[in-house]
Amino acid sequence: MLVVMKKGSTPDELSGVIGKITQSGLAGHISQGVERTVIGVVGQTYPELRDMLELLPGVDEVIPISKPYKLSSREFQHEDTKIKVGDIIIGGEELVIIAGPCAVETEKQVLDTARAVKAAGANILRGGAFKPSTSPYQFRGLGKEGLEILALARAETGLPLITEVLTPHDVDLVAKYADILQIGARNMQNFTLLDEVGKVKKPVMLKRGMSATIQEWLLSAEYILSQGNRQVMLCERGIRTFETYTRNTLDVSAIPVVKKLSHLPIIADPSHGTGKWYLVAPLALASVAAGADGLMIEVHPNPDQALKDGAQSLTFESFEQLMAQLAPLASSVQRKLPAKPGDKIDQ
Amino acid sequence: MLVVMKKGSTPDELSGVIGKITQSGLAGHISQGVERTVIGVVGQTYPELRDMLELLPGVDEVIPISKPYKLSSREFQHEDTKIKVGDIIIGGEELVIIAGPCAVETEKQVLDTARAVKAAGANILRGGAFKPSTSPYQFRGLGKEGLEILALARAETGLPLITEVLTPHDVDLVAKYADILQIGARNMQNFTLLDEVGKVKKPVMLKRGMSATIQEWLLSAEYILSQGNRQVMLCERGIRTFETYTRNTLDVSAIPVVKKLSHLPIIADPSHGTGKWYLVAPLALASVAAGADGLMIEVHPNPDQALKDGAQSLTFESFEQLMAQLAPLASSVQRKLPAKPGDKIDQ
Amino acid sequence: MLVVMKKGSTPDELSGVIGKITQSGLAGHISQGVERTVIGVVGQTYPELRDMLELLPGVDEVIPISKPYKLSSREFQHEDTKIKVGDIIIGGEELVIIAGPCAVETEKQVLDTARAVKAAGANILRGGAFKPSTSPYQFRGLGKEGLEILALARAETGLPLITEVLTPHDVDLVAKYADILQIGARNMQNFTLLDEVGKVKKPVMLKRGMSATIQEWLLSAEYILSQGNRQVMLCERGIRTFETYTRNTLDVSAIPVVKKLSHLPIIADPSHGTGKWYLVAPLALASVAAGADGLMIEVHPNPDQALKDGAQSLTFESFEQLMAQLAPLASSVQRKLPAKPGDKIDQ
Amino acid sequence: MLVVMKKGSTPDELSGVIGKITQSGLAGHISQGVERTVIGVVGQTYPELRDMLELLPGVDEVIPISKPYKLSSREFQHEDTKIKVGDIIIGGEELVIIAGPCAVETEKQVLDTARAVKAAGANILRGGAFKPSTSPYQFRGLGKEGLEILALARAETGLPLITEVLTPHDVDLVAKYADILQIGARNMQNFTLLDEVGKVKKPVMLKRGMSATIQEWLLSAEYILSQGNRQVMLCERGIRTFETYTRNTLDVSAIPVVKKLSHLPIIADPSHGTGKWYLVAPLALASVAAGADGLMIEVHPNPDQALKDGAQSLTFESFEQLMAQLAPLASSVQRKLPAKPGDKIDQ
Repeated sequence: MLVVMKKGSTPDELSGVIGKITQSGLAGHISQGVERTVIGVVGQTYPELRDMLELLPGVDEVIPISKPYKLSSREFQHEDTKIKVGDIIIGGEELVIIAGPCAVETEKQVLDTARAVKAAGANILRGGAFKPSTSPYQFRGLGKEGLEILALARAETGLPLITEVLTPHDVDLVAKYADILQIGARNMQNFTLLDEVGKVKKPVMLKRGMSATIQEWLLSAEYILSQGNRQVMLCERGIRTFETYTRNTLDVSAIPVVKKLSHLPIIADPSHGTGKWYLVAPLALASVAAGADGLMIEVHPNPDQALKDGAQSLTFESFEQLMAQLAPLASSVQRKLPAKPGDKIDQ
Repeated sequence: MLVVMKKGSTPDELSGVIGKITQSGLAGHISQGVERTVIGVVGQTYPELRDMLELLPGVDEVIPISKPYKLSSREFQHEDTKIKVGDIIIGGEELVIIAGPCAVETEKQVLDTARAVKAAGANILRGGAFKPSTSPYQFRGLGKEGLEILALARAETGLPLITEVLTPHDVDLVAKYADILQIGARNMQNFTLLDEVGKVKKPVMLKRGMSATIQEWLLSAEYILSQGNRQVMLCERGIRTFETYTRNTLDVSAIPVVKKLSHLPIIADPSHGTGKWYLVAPLALASVAAGADGLMIEVHPNPDQALKDGAQSLTFESFEQLMAQLAPLASSVQRKLPAKPGDKIDQ
Repeated sequence: MLVVMKKGSTPDELSGVIGKITQSGLAGHISQGVERTVIGVVGQTYPELRDMLELLPGVDEVIPISKPYKLSSREFQHEDTKIKVGDIIIGGEELVIIAGPCAVETEKQVLDTARAVKAAGANILRGGAFKPSTSPYQFRGLGKEGLEILALARAETGLPLITEVLTPHDVDLVAKYADILQIGARNMQNFTLLDEVGKVKKPVMLKRGMSATIQEWLLSAEYILSQGNRQVMLCERGIRTFETYTRNTLDVSAIPVVKKLSHLPIIADPSHGTGKWYLVAPLALASVAAGADGLMIEVHPNPDQALKDGAQSLTFESFEQLMAQLAPLASSVQRKLPAKPGDKIDQ
Repeated sequence: MLVVMKKGSTPDELSGVIGKITQSGLAGHISQGVERTVIGVVGQTYPELRDMLELLPGVDEVIPISKPYKLSSREFQHEDTKIKVGDIIIGGEELVIIAGPCAVETEKQVLDTARAVKAAGANILRGGAFKPSTSPYQFRGLGKEGLEILALARAETGLPLITEVLTPHDVDLVAKYADILQIGARNMQNFTLLDEVGKVKKPVMLKRGMSATIQEWLLSAEYILSQGNRQVMLCERGIRTFETYTRNTLDVSAIPVVKKLSHLPIIADPSHGTGKWYLVAPLALASVAAGADGLMIEVHPNPDQALKDGAQSLTFESFEQLMAQLAPLASSVQRKLPAKPGDKIDQ
């Protein structure tokens, strides 16, 4: 932490600041510039200290230096985190392809979609049983019945499941069905929920909040990690900006930034990130090119009859086309798609 | 709902759209422009219909017209909602002044502050027992013990209490102590929590989310209202923008906008809205000038030792000064401050 | 300037940074923290140094400390700048009220408006002869003819004129007619234009760019000041955010922030700031409450026939009402409105 | 244009609106919904009409339908625009690679860089002679001397030149040297400058403004096109958002959006888009994956001694590495890099 004194601050004010620092059990190193004096605070500082020091007379600004997140940082763990879900490794050379409907509607819808995305090369099934919805008058998901439909689809296809949990009370129930728990963008700072999924022994995918900085996102991951659950992956799903043509602005830069600052795997969600189905394929390719460890794609048998987010869902056919485009692109950046059901395996 | 067809769309595409509309139990009125054809959809539409229609061949855009919120709209209820808390009326001619510390720290801190803000003219006491915190390593509040301290302060001063509830599980507990339940900005779209406070018979203050549009905010109010709780007030507390000098950008315009669109009372929080104590007074004055029904102000006996948000807290003295400035300004816009303990009452 | 070294940076890397600093004619003071080493750079630094140092091995971050603007800062000049335009003083106790049409359309329109706003208490006339327009197919102003119409209105009413200049080539022409030159939001970083108005001996009003930080705004003022023209006033006119209900988000907080950081007068423009006529009055009141030195208001004889920005223009009647509301509010914050034509003058 | 009447608007108000529409030489088709009445305006509308109608009693909202840009739209010209610069075609299968220093500093710097980027496979040379700079105290470019240095580099390497023009007065001078004129982000709405480059017979690259919507960007292109210059290409260079880790947020989605809405070629600038050299390669790959027609990359012999934007410049070596990564990625999306000097040509 650095305390920058005002131009023309007095020696008394300087002593006041130094006094406050030593009184807090820390030390202050003075560095005299031409225009300003700066004090380097030495010792284990804490966030509240900043506010306190900023209020002292003569202080212009207090600048934190140590990064506020620890367990999620590259400095804490140099090696990439790899998360195992059955035979799948998230965060390795092989990309993970998560696909399925936005919301679970019927058994047939989910089973048809599961079969189709598996055939096209997806290796994890997504589907929402509990759905957050901006308006109370919109569809909010089938709840437990939805989880059972998803479990049926897993039983038939062998695809592991990811599904969202909305509230601490439902964590145990959802964890009984899901292979990966999803925390949605609106809940990125629902700290009670983060605590709760931090206590579960299941991987968690943490979506970035609509207006969360990358630092705040990593601090939310820190909540889960600090409860003992180290199987956390992140998901970039678009941020809110002034541009209204797209539903959100997919922050593709966040992918290499997260790779630099953190060891956690990162997935991209171009469906929510753009809100328009015809933008999903170009942004999926872009995300993999930028270093994403996987993709999360909404697929629906009949997007024009979907109860939720139809406008951003791919049909089976367009999902298959996307997978065909992805294969050569992935290999151009030294990544691989998951093996498809019929693929021959190199020996 | 209006369906705008593409330039050069075919008669077949037009029939397709009309077919889909009638099949959904609605009617479509065609309006032929020079460049484009527009279909007005007549009947009770629903949000998912938009996505469906947008995907049909020949459709360029679907524009919703009916506002998606009902119970919170001025059209639904023309008269201002007035909320009674003891003798206080929120949403009337008299402003409501909510003051107190960001977080409950000690009994002495809360009691001292309660006495001081009451003496200066506040009529509701604020204080957080459950605190949301960006980092898991920061202070998260005293919990139940904090609620008990607040109750003590009410018993002594007679000031009603507002305090935040973070999770559905705590709603009953917090409602036992609080006179007004606060939903924080990070929870504006925690829909399970909104449902829960919608079932309680206590007034609720709903803060605007950091990146929520005014429409989304009113839709979140709609969650509470539609559960049967009509005692909802809103609180503008700043939105996230590119400007970093202030912690948030207090959207003062949102105050008259809410007054126009909705009948719900609106409070301004210039403490979180600016993040700097020396900006609290000018923005408090500005908010009342713009039509706010009240203010929520952080006050602390020793801001430089506060465990949370000290930099934006007023001292007792600066709060008293603010109240002195507020009185003439309020009367210049036909509002009144609450009567102070020693005030003579007109007979 | 502070150089923050990476955790685990080597002594060699530290020497490398110190070497680069001394080689640049400056000195580096080392401050060893528990986790990181920080170097305080002493001497007159320059912006490019930051980039250079940031690239050296072992460096984590370089943090500038000295504020990059000088002439516009409160530290450079403690006293408020007051600008004289005829008998009017901008930046004093008396507010300045600038009113008139967005664009000059006809002689009658301007004369009628000038008379009406003068009668209601405005003391400066606004009107655009050169108009920036998002689309090439919209009205772009009457040019020189518009300036002549404005001059006629001044001759008749005695109101000084403010009008926008769009391009360096027109500065001399516009300066011949105008009493105050206006630089619009889109030109806040048109540096050639800033240089040019910096050479003129006329006051300049610099509007904030739609996505400009307060620091960038003050740096643009610095361009004008550093050319020798010290008669600069600022104008907050709204920033671009995600909220689309209002045309822009008027950043009312910027008013007291500018007052703290700078000695330059600041005017608020609630017409562009909100884009809706019914929001102009509440935001005008709010701006004055927050400390603005004046207001800039669009007024039109027939807003529904205006060639530009009719939706945000006040009628004569609603302008008169606003002035009536302003008078008591201004005096509640120790400001005065300009004397109106018929006012008795205290002797 | 659609006029949406308020709920409960009267027949008189409806007649008033219809009257105004017919009086403007247009026709109005009424469409009666359950909750609201909508009028479709038929005929060639104009932007000012919207404001006028919005002010009439009983009107809730006016919604424009026809897109405001014409010449830049896909509907106006279905085929992609291809721009020839010497042997290079911008907007075809072959990507264009623009590389060079941010600012021209010395002859040696430019010549060394030109040779290096050519050897690595760039086919256009960039370099700024006139530089916009946020602060008046920073380096603002060598001016005409810089143009001459660039011309020398072209003479030696054969690479065509792109360089920025800042002000209408300099258009002729810059056009004498440059093969492509660049309009920078800060000048995207400098309409006088747009008019001027619209009259020149040289290709123009129009960078997106920091807070410009895609629609505003296309309207600025429209200025140039409507003056008769049809050789316009766009450049996405990042928008301003709340995220501060990156200098800007490169809006990768804008690339496929522009491809859908417009026929103009689009280039990506990951150097300004991210502001950090280590993010340039991943975002360059992402941009090509998303469909960009080319890249603009800052390269400097010694980024740590650059006078401008060193932190975002690649060294010769890292540029070469990027080109090596790009080749397979480009071919995976059916694009090609320009032939390098030593490449064998297929016969």
